[in-house]
Amino acid sequence: MDEVLLPLTGHRKTMEWNLRGAFAAPLAPIIVVLLGLFAVFTKYNDSNATDAHVQRYYVFYTHVSIMVFVGFGFLMTFLRRYSYSAVGLNFFTSCLVMLEAILVVGAVQQVVWGSAAAGKIEVDLPLLIDAGFCAAAAMISFGAVLGKLSPTQLTFLLLLEVPLYAINQHLVFDTFKALDIGGSMSIHAFGAYYGLAASLVLCGPGSGSSHLKNGASYTSDMTAMIGTIFLWIFWPSFNGALASNPAAVATGGVQFQFHCIINTIIALLGACVSTFAASAAYDGKFNMVHIQNATLAGGVAIGSAANMKILPGGALLVGVLAGVLSTTGYKYIAPTLEAKIALRDTCGVHNLHGMPGVLGGLAAAAASALAFSANEPILRHGKQQWLYQLLALAVTLAIALVGGALAGTLVRLCSPARHTLGPELMYEDGVFWEEVEAEEGEDWHGGAATNGTNGISM
Amino acid sequence: MDEVLLPLTGHRKTMEWNLRGAFAAPLAPIIVVLLGLFAVFTKYNDSNATDAHVQRYYVFYTHVSIMVFVGFGFLMTFLRRYSYSAVGLNFFTSCLVMLEAILVVGAVQQVVWGSAAAGKIEVDLPLLIDAGFCAAAAMISFGAVLGKLSPTQLTFLLLLEVPLYAINQHLVFDTFKALDIGGSMSIHAFGAYYGLAASLVLCGPGSGSSHLKNGASYTSDMTAMIGTIFLWIFWPSFNGALASNPAAVATGGVQFQFHCIINTIIALLGACVSTFAASAAYDGKFNMVHIQNATLAGGVAIGSAANMKILPGGALLVGVLAGVLSTTGYKYIAPTLEAKIALRDTCGVHNLHGMPGVLGGLAAAAASALAFSANEPILRHGKQQWLYQLLALAVTLAIALVGGALAGTLVRLCSPARHTLGPELMYEDGVFWEEVEAEEGEDWHGGAATNGTNGISM
Amino acid sequence: MDEVLLPLTGHRKTMEWNLRGAFAAPLAPIIVVLLGLFAVFTKYNDSNATDAHVQRYYVFYTHVSIMVFVGFGFLMTFLRRYSYSAVGLNFFTSCLVMLEAILVVGAVQQVVWGSAAAGKIEVDLPLLIDAGFCAAAAMISFGAVLGKLSPTQLTFLLLLEVPLYAINQHLVFDTFKALDIGGSMSIHAFGAYYGLAASLVLCGPGSGSSHLKNGASYTSDMTAMIGTIFLWIFWPSFNGALASNPAAVATGGVQFQFHCIINTIIALLGACVSTFAASAAYDGKFNMVHIQNATLAGGVAIGSAANMKILPGGALLVGVLAGVLSTTGYKYIAPTLEAKIALRDTCGVHNLHGMPGVLGGLAAAAASALAFSANEPILRHGKQQWLYQLLALAVTLAIALVGGALAGTLVRLCSPARHTLGPELMYEDGVFWEEVEAEEGEDWHGGAATNGTNGISM
Repeated sequence: MDEVLLPLTGHRKTMEWNLRGAFAAPLAPIIVVLLGLFAVFTKYNDSNATDAHVQRYYVFYTHVSIMVFVGFGFLMTFLRRYSYSAVGLNFFTSCLVMLEAILVVGAVQQVVWGSAAAGKIEVDLPLLIDAGFCAAAAMISFGAVLGKLSPTQLTFLLLLEVPLYAINQHLVFDTFKALDIGGSMSIHAFGAYYGLAASLVLCGPGSGSSHLKNGASYTSDMTAMIGTIFLWIFWPSFNGALASNPAAVATGGVQFQFHCIINTIIALLGACVSTFAASAAYDGKFNMVHIQNATLAGGVAIGSAANMKILPGGALLVGVLAGVLSTTGYKYIAPTLEAKIALRDTCGVHNLHGMPGVLGGLAAAAASALAFSANEPILRHGKQQWLYQLLALAVTLAIALVGGALAGTLVRLCSPARHTLGPELMYEDGVFWEEVEAEEGEDWHGGAATNGTNGISM
Repeated sequence: MDEVLLPLTGHRKTMEWNLRGAFAAPLAPIIVVLLGLFAVFTKYNDSNATDAHVQRYYVFYTHVSIMVFVGFGFLMTFLRRYSYSAVGLNFFTSCLVMLEAILVVGAVQQVVWGSAAAGKIEVDLPLLIDAGFCAAAAMISFGAVLGKLSPTQLTFLLLLEVPLYAINQHLVFDTFKALDIGGSMSIHAFGAYYGLAASLVLCGPGSGSSHLKNGASYTSDMTAMIGTIFLWIFWPSFNGALASNPAAVATGGVQFQFHCIINTIIALLGACVSTFAASAAYDGKFNMVHIQNATLAGGVAIGSAANMKILPGGALLVGVLAGVLSTTGYKYIAPTLEAKIALRDTCGVHNLHGMPGVLGGLAAAAASALAFSANEPILRHGKQQWLYQLLALAVTLAIALVGGALAGTLVRLCSPARHTLGPELMYEDGVFWEEVEAEEGEDWHGGAATNGTNGISM
Repeated sequence: MDEVLLPLTGHRKTMEWNLRGAFAAPLAPIIVVLLGLFAVFTKYNDSNATDAHVQRYYVFYTHVSIMVFVGFGFLMTFLRRYSYSAVGLNFFTSCLVMLEAILVVGAVQQVVWGSAAAGKIEVDLPLLIDAGFCAAAAMISFGAVLGKLSPTQLTFLLLLEVPLYAINQHLVFDTFKALDIGGSMSIHAFGAYYGLAASLVLCGPGSGSSHLKNGASYTSDMTAMIGTIFLWIFWPSFNGALASNPAAVATGGVQFQFHCIINTIIALLGACVSTFAASAAYDGKFNMVHIQNATLAGGVAIGSAANMKILPGGALLVGVLAGVLSTTGYKYIAPTLEAKIALRDTCGVHNLHGMPGVLGGLAAAAASALAFSANEPILRHGKQQWLYQLLALAVTLAIALVGGALAGTLVRLCSPARHTLGPELMYEDGVFWEEVEAEEGEDWHGGAATNGTNGISM
């Protein structure tokens, strides 16, 4: 059986989607290439094969993994007919992106602009944490297009993101020497705007918030809360995972990881509390979408300045503002953007990662401008640090937006019509997964429903 | 739209509850006050800004967070129509309580009875762990009233708990120098009896175990098991989080955290096994309520004596007894208390935290009286230690019961009638959350169901 | 009320199963014996009561616990009518097995073939981790018979597994001095083939894959994914938990834990990616059974060789192959084995633990034969190491298969007819749990359904 996807006529009888040719066929050579590149270009970083290295980094690596695979994976299961795909494609694409990132981020850090003598990428835990960060950025991008792309389109969109991520990371940290320890700019804003630009290019009419299947059930909202709670708990580890780098600490003379963790915890406490207040104020009831997402905005927004001594009160202020900003985004800004510029953002990553990421970048610039003396050692540009912070933010947004639009265009051009989802197949696990029962009164598997409701409303 | 809650007549047509005025309005100034107090009264404890401090405490902090937010949060989702509120209000109130506890517990420890020079509270990881412990006590109290209070009533009830918790903690540990490393008394018994006393005052007829919605579904019992399993796994961290305190270890000359962890693991193994035996013996089948709760009683009961050298066999005995006691509580004691003194205890916190907490206090007193010589260094009162243990237990119960009753009365007096839930609105997410569908044959949103079943039976 | 289970006639009216006599009665004396043995034969290993010991092992202990209780527990909830039993019996039997393993594995290591002076078992964290490993092996065996045994039969089958596990572990590690740090052979292959042999003996016609209840629902597949994702994240800890043993490291002169962790992470990344490719290639769609299981095969297969310097490329190759092998097992091999030799394997442990475990053993033998010079210090037999690896594998398979068949036979012979599940009671929580509603159109509680469908098809 080969791929059979009939054109979008009114009464198609067979709406089969065969992943053998559409997915397995292009994936197989990618795996072979990865095997070859790993064999030729990687080795262990045996200078780090010590107890101290494992004790310093491994727990943080597991926490970052929880963020990526449990956190983003289950948060995206909120769609009542797309939970398999959410957690499954999150799992698959995160692994593929991490493998690519070990090679690409590793090459950028160690070979292209590094000093690796033998031209080999040396694998150790910080590199794997960086690969996890890259997967986090990719999963944020995934959130913008969740439910609207085929697995193959999604895979290529995210594979294209990795080199841009690596180059931007190099510019932010090495070229501009900007502060962004938790990745407000380089992970959250980058991932969000890359995904949003791609969504503008790839996701057309009928795929937006009024799609009948673009919604939650009681059960899917509960599995999504698993993601939220684990993200919330382990966010301090995300922001602080690489903050104990011995060299960095030596430069500064203070222990940045301590401040990273304290600041992030307090910002998250503030964001949760302010989100509940804002959600109740806006809607008169609590809104699960707000609670699942905006409670986390404190972790995003504190990211750039997390290792600065902004004081517990400063961290709380950033968190409270981020929660309100993000809730406002879900309530008012996202609907406006969808109406005005056709920005269709399934998970609202603009509200959780985009705007709070920019807020985080601005907060770090402001904190740099206020020039807390104790932070001076980490302000590599002294009094001018705030300028480089803004530069890093601007470059990140530019690369993400242009890169996402180009990558989206490329994916669009390379997708045969039969590999492009029409709205009637969106937000629906049954198209790509075995043994998913149709919803009552619907027959997506065998064709458009006879009663006229085929999952499209807008 | 303003709050509209019609009086409890037979056929109300609009049963709207507007959280804008009832919740967001009082919460907003609280957030502003928190921001001000944090700005004025907190700073980092920079003497702890070291790698060693982070490695000693941070992992335990994350485990305590898992207990509070995943553990208690999901355990309480067992109610089939109240899962959003369980995990959501657990999330919100835990964050608010932690922020308050940083200030109040911090002030009690460092300023009121401490030696903080500048009058500032110094934030570090042990203080945040203590704030998590305080939130655990509050979530235990929440369990007693789960489903029966409005979000605003719940919030104020738990905000009032924090100062009492802080004072009692000071009395137990500093005044009486009692052993209670895992908080059998100061966290579990305190939280349980505070909540139970409040429930007696606040939760009237019709709100008890025979309420039609006070029950589980197959799915909600599964999400509750997520809470149980994570609580069970991380309980050794809860009991041992602060047991490696360098000063305390120096006093004792032995490494208490090691014994804390070993004892708690073995007690929990025993409680799980004995709970399954007791549940089968009592009911002829396994009962999910027993399995979700009593399996954890070993962690509660070993708490006070966890850092004593009671030997693996002693820990196993405590655990086995706790499992049987707790199962017996659920099967026989709780129904009796509900029938005799109208004690309505949604989660059965009396069975899981109340009685096992008292058992834990008594176990530590007994172990002290037996005066294991090896433990002498941590017995600050030598042979008289058991007296101080009993004193700490008695004072804890008194403060919790009187405090809970007074706080409950205060909440009751300050609640306008329109902000008090009648039984027909209890155990129901739809009252406070957007987009929750009504159960079949029920119309809680638009008024009492015409078929006469509106969720009340008792 | 006593146990009443009528013989398998066409129209039984009462199909009650009473766990009071069948389960609680035999369990009570077991608990008493455990209490006695713990009191007499265990003490703390106080030479390990140090900060360093706790920091070296405790986090890994919690991760192994997550694997056993969250991982295996929730993975097995995929059966739509057996989720309570999956997570509940996993919880209970794991605890019971761990208590037994502390005694039995402890005795084998320290007393029988050890040097414990006083004849006491000294409890510390490595012994508890070993107890967790033993529970993991038992849970793998559970997977082969999931849904088909009574709780009592299951309990005794797994209790009988522990001494065999302990003896085999001693042979593999101490007698043959084989490499098997992550237990590909001694945990995964052992547990799988023990369970499969028992299944051949215990699970008759009508209990196989075509049983009407031997399947998932949308919700149960999601709770199973919780298990999968947590297993996947914490597998590096499972393989590396005991790899930092100071003595072992001293022998080798390199830090094996570092390589264990890196190799396992990369193998798991590879297995996830290749599983998605293979699933799509075989079925044309993604298959939840493959994704939930085969993605983990990389962790199994890398286990024996994880602390060898097989390079990142070697680890990736092992992972990719394991994912494909395991998916092939689910798709083609398992149905063949069920058809040809009546091997009924509910969770497909042959595909996830059996074959990948053997692959892992062979991979370590091959790596030993290739004699990476850097690994020589851990190759206790030098150039002959590969022979001892194969010997360890063969002995493991023999003990597991013969032991499982004998244990299964013993359980079968000792089970009264009334304590043996007929197919009409299999895969059904309602038989053993309170308050489980019957499926639509079915009346398992009160007897065989009148419409003729009573859960059996094959």
